[in-house]
Amino acid sequence: MQIDVLSLFPEMFDGPMTTSIIGKAQEKKVANIDVTDFRKFAVNKHGHVDDYPYGGGAGMLLRVDPINDALEEINSKHPDTKKRVILMDPAGETFTQRHAESFAQDDHLIFICGHYEGYDERIRSYVTDEISVGDYVLTGGELGAMIVIDATVRLLDNAVGNEDSITGDSFSTGLLEYPQYTRPPEYKGMKVPNVLMSGNHAKIADWKGKESLRRTYERRPDLLDNYPLSNQQKVWLNEIKAESKE
Amino acid sequence: MQIDVLSLFPEMFDGPMTTSIIGKAQEKKVANIDVTDFRKFAVNKHGHVDDYPYGGGAGMLLRVDPINDALEEINSKHPDTKKRVILMDPAGETFTQRHAESFAQDDHLIFICGHYEGYDERIRSYVTDEISVGDYVLTGGELGAMIVIDATVRLLDNAVGNEDSITGDSFSTGLLEYPQYTRPPEYKGMKVPNVLMSGNHAKIADWKGKESLRRTYERRPDLLDNYPLSNQQKVWLNEIKAESKE
Repeated sequence: MQIDVLSLFPEMFDGPMTTSIIGKAQEKKVANIDVTDFRKFAVNKHGHVDDYPYGGGAGMLLRVDPINDALEEINSKHPDTKKRVILMDPAGETFTQRHAESFAQDDHLIFICGHYEGYDERIRSYVTDEISVGDYVLTGGELGAMIVIDATVRLLDNAVGNEDSITGDSFSTGLLEYPQYTRPPEYKGMKVPNVLMSGNHAKIADWKGKESLRRTYERRPDLLDNYPLSNQQKVWLNEIKAESKE
Repeated sequence: MQIDVLSLFPEMFDGPMTTSIIGKAQEKKVANIDVTDFRKFAVNKHGHVDDYPYGGGAGMLLRVDPINDALEEINSKHPDTKKRVILMDPAGETFTQRHAESFAQDDHLIFICGHYEGYDERIRSYVTDEISVGDYVLTGGELGAMIVIDATVRLLDNAVGNEDSITGDSFSTGLLEYPQYTRPPEYKGMKVPNVLMSGNHAKIADWKGKESLRRTYERRPDLLDNYPLSNQQKVWLNEIKAESKE
């Protein structure tokens, strides 16, 4: 997968994009990430890529022309890829695991990151997707782009070593993960539940299934709204509801 | 504000936390960010901070004891701060601008970032907040912690130059921002709306108010559910609904 990022702060990507899974994915040629400082397409010799908003208002807006030119350069470098152009914007669609799964099918993602400022509306005519990573305001689109890249690249074949560690994730199964424990068996009076150390695989599987459901019910009942419960899960959910009233 | 981050990949923070507003906030002593590699509290000479889950399952879990020891060290360095200990976890509460506003009132934030792995359940007994930045799976908590730090620190007094550029943000007003335009007035056939270049301030203010409402209605109607519409906004909203049917 080819990934291009347009940013005025390319150095922000130095640590996150060369470390851990994203770094390994680049080493293994699963993904290649190019970050372009689009100030090189500035409209004047002062390096300006932004200007005052028409009609007044605080802050500056990114101009459309440097973005046009930066995208043209990417097109000329990669004429044959199928491109998805993603604008990082708080007014965009809220990013979810479903988007990551969809983006992971693409072969070329291009991210446009604003910083401090808003976008000239006409920039939107160049994009295929407008994405927000959540209902909060960030100083720029860079961290959001890194989130989308991280969530997407880890789904690519050969990016993560152990396939299992993807399929059991929260949100991938549609439920939150059950509580997990590792050694020591007791720490400052806090013990691992006996069932997990029992060696009884059927009982352990039941405990995990029910506790995953319990955590979802307690913390994110909205995730159950459209979840196709099995008969066993329906029984557990009734038990959980009764137990929560005790 | 003192910010501590516990991570196994401290180098991920290099670019993002020294650049732009976060970097400036640190220079101005508005915030100080210390990232600790908690591998230094490993349980053995091999540097292990994780172990296999009891009851089986894929992946490894972070042990509770290195986290305990890392938090004790932070406590001894900062004995008098009021601490908020934030676990970055997909099963946590979904982070919103309201959380950022609340965190911005605190004087010491501590972030625990897992990576690849899950947490031993007992780590949760040390935390005041469990936070997820969205419904997607990341390779670690680091990018999420950076998101929370960025959204929070920019709200601190003197972190951002122009106060106005905070108060007009999407989510801060409760509505999405209206479409914005800057020069050039025409680009590849795409024109700036006449009203914005009219110089008629009252008309411009009305246009902005209505277009902000329209964008919210079209893209994030959920934000209007509990929004206290003014009488003028009610009139606009009816017009917008009628116009959308045309």
